[in-house]
Amino acid sequence: MTAKQENGNGTTEKVLRVGLLGFGTVGSSFAEVLSASGAQDVRITHIFNRDVARKRSHARARFVPAEAVWTERVEDVLEAADVDVVVELMGGLDPIEGWLRSALNAGKHVVTANKQLIAYRGAALFELVASKGVQLLYGAAVAGGVPVIPGMSQGLSGDQITRISGIVNGTCNFILSSMEAGADYSEVLKTAQRLGYAEADPSADVDGFDARAKLCILARIALRAEINPEDVPAQSISQISAVDFAYAKELGCTVRQVSRAQIDGDRISARVGPMLVPKNSPIAWSHGTQNMVVTSGRFGGDVVFSGHGAGGHPTAVAVMSDVRAVAEDSHAVRLPAKKVEVSGGVIAPHYLRFVVADRPGIVAAIAGALAKFGVNIDSILQHRGFGGDRLPFVVTTEPSNSATLDKAIAEIGTMDFMLEAPLCLQILVVDDPDTD
Amino acid sequence: MTAKQENGNGTTEKVLRVGLLGFGTVGSSFAEVLSASGAQDVRITHIFNRDVARKRSHARARFVPAEAVWTERVEDVLEAADVDVVVELMGGLDPIEGWLRSALNAGKHVVTANKQLIAYRGAALFELVASKGVQLLYGAAVAGGVPVIPGMSQGLSGDQITRISGIVNGTCNFILSSMEAGADYSEVLKTAQRLGYAEADPSADVDGFDARAKLCILARIALRAEINPEDVPAQSISQISAVDFAYAKELGCTVRQVSRAQIDGDRISARVGPMLVPKNSPIAWSHGTQNMVVTSGRFGGDVVFSGHGAGGHPTAVAVMSDVRAVAEDSHAVRLPAKKVEVSGGVIAPHYLRFVVADRPGIVAAIAGALAKFGVNIDSILQHRGFGGDRLPFVVTTEPSNSATLDKAIAEIGTMDFMLEAPLCLQILVVDDPDTD
Repeated sequence: MTAKQENGNGTTEKVLRVGLLGFGTVGSSFAEVLSASGAQDVRITHIFNRDVARKRSHARARFVPAEAVWTERVEDVLEAADVDVVVELMGGLDPIEGWLRSALNAGKHVVTANKQLIAYRGAALFELVASKGVQLLYGAAVAGGVPVIPGMSQGLSGDQITRISGIVNGTCNFILSSMEAGADYSEVLKTAQRLGYAEADPSADVDGFDARAKLCILARIALRAEINPEDVPAQSISQISAVDFAYAKELGCTVRQVSRAQIDGDRISARVGPMLVPKNSPIAWSHGTQNMVVTSGRFGGDVVFSGHGAGGHPTAVAVMSDVRAVAEDSHAVRLPAKKVEVSGGVIAPHYLRFVVADRPGIVAAIAGALAKFGVNIDSILQHRGFGGDRLPFVVTTEPSNSATLDKAIAEIGTMDFMLEAPLCLQILVVDDPDTD
Repeated sequence: MTAKQENGNGTTEKVLRVGLLGFGTVGSSFAEVLSASGAQDVRITHIFNRDVARKRSHARARFVPAEAVWTERVEDVLEAADVDVVVELMGGLDPIEGWLRSALNAGKHVVTANKQLIAYRGAALFELVASKGVQLLYGAAVAGGVPVIPGMSQGLSGDQITRISGIVNGTCNFILSSMEAGADYSEVLKTAQRLGYAEADPSADVDGFDARAKLCILARIALRAEINPEDVPAQSISQISAVDFAYAKELGCTVRQVSRAQIDGDRISARVGPMLVPKNSPIAWSHGTQNMVVTSGRFGGDVVFSGHGAGGHPTAVAVMSDVRAVAEDSHAVRLPAKKVEVSGGVIAPHYLRFVVADRPGIVAAIAGALAKFGVNIDSILQHRGFGGDRLPFVVTTEPSNSATLDKAIAEIGTMDFMLEAPLCLQILVVDDPDTD
């Protein structure tokens, strides 16, 4: 696939020719990281982007070899005989999928940071890749510069991972860790938008759709389970308020958007949403936009990967590492996955926060509804300092099935004293046993 | 290299035949992990150990296929035509190096957990491996079940790592994290010995020689630097006492055995020893026997790998992952390293603890000696509650060259009021900038 090139010493050396789709933050950072690496065996030969004239004046365009072809026609890259690997850094499903299928069909390798594509169309693409004998690498699709995909693929292939828990959306982690430090949700969301961490429409981040796609990618590698992202319940972080951090603190916890999938025989549970995280759990360590993934293996116990999950340079490191793997024909270990239905319900302790108009009998009514569904109460917490006309209080449950709990909550939500929809969050439990 | 075998469906399938050297804790755990994986393409065919009769009655011997050959003659494994990969889980330099060279020369792959071998003889072995076109994998040699070697090799090959800091000796981490919680050094060392974490002669652990070998292995991959382990200064943790944890706490720190190497152009500094670690640094997170490695990349910033660094099962996961990579012919990315001299001195703030017979003029004498060598004092700390006849007090310095400081300390150590050799520890600084 790669071209042989005369080098200065009169000998020839393989060069991997890169066709780059997208010269935005990540694409231009990739050009810089490649240039800085001094690698003689990888070279950008083509760049596709809209408005090439503007892109060529980008400060990082100086990292692109002068002889590279800049084009606004994607076919110029996909059909080029002198492109060995297409590096796609644009994102989205369509038309990208069609473009990358053309490239793969033409025998080109593909490196991509496209989480939606791998989460939603990965299974079919992997089949195509296997039939063509090329590589499709996507280490940058989850957790940017944190090498969790290569680390799991190569370093944990010998274990049986039963659970994966991650902080894979830096925007939510920035928002929630700022709220932990006292910031208000809407204020910190505005800050995140100003800093470029959050989109004008923040839904993909705060409502968990971005994290859900990433969780499905990780589940395929870690749990060998092909899950449909649409089947994973996603709960928004937008309901979380200062009072939840106060109660969480009382419980020795904080609140983070956690993406979690667990396999138990043929049954898989998966969920994305704000959860109570014990302060002594690694998940509570990450702050700001950091990402973290914790795998729990049958034999190896818990393994933590953490670092910068986003940003041009960290993401470009992941892309560059994949390109190096292609250049050296270093294929990953095969991790065959099978299609699994998400069964939803999780057995876990839960945090229930109610906002009520205070009057006698409220606790009895709520406790009664929970008892009816077989949910045991672990504790009832009520902070002072709130007026009775709008009283937030918290019930924690003993380990309960979340699906059952949902039914109880639905019933409680209709009670006449309830001023807001009840908030129900899973409480994570630290349980990595010592392994021997 | 691998045998083709008829499977039940009348088609043939490649089988990788494993010759196992050593059926101790890790070797028998490997047999269990392999058996539990259900892999049909990897099979143990030979096991070498002393006293085979006893080993065959080991509870985990049931995980070894009945037809496997058990032998007390290593040649039976090294010379077997039906062994594709030798898995060495015995440790030590000699006679292991000769055995593995025979295996490599015979065209067999090697997977090993042997840190001494890779640290001291790795460079020559890698040359042999390259000339033979076989694989030598050693993911289990550092941090057991934490996939830092495959994670760095595959996932960070695109970055330029400038520094690596690790907690790679679980015994020292157990001792120091227990001391942080109030335990006494000699008591906790005894506990570690009773639990099997520490040897009867604990020197390899507490004096830093074990960690030093691991640091050199990591430096080769991360910094692409071939360092002689003997050139890395190793400081014992045995000088650390409760008073150091009390002062460290006052400075917002704790004490851990840290292994650290940093490259700056052609200059490399490396050191193993107890250091003051800020509580908000990832390095302070690990407790008990956990291991942790933090890489600092020019483009990707800080990446953390953490988990169970030792124990039969976690180490066996790393071995099994390497065996899978061999079975699937998945070679790692080449990371050529060059030989570099360790230059020793580090510019960093330092913690100096003195135990003196109190009398007027001590601070002036010490400050004078430091000033003579151009070392600036940042703070002087003195806890109440100690008698003047044996007074421990602490001086912290502004960033200073450790080599210069060593000279100042040598001079101070001779002063007549000094009751113990002064203790000098590097203070780590948290400085991962946000990357973009």
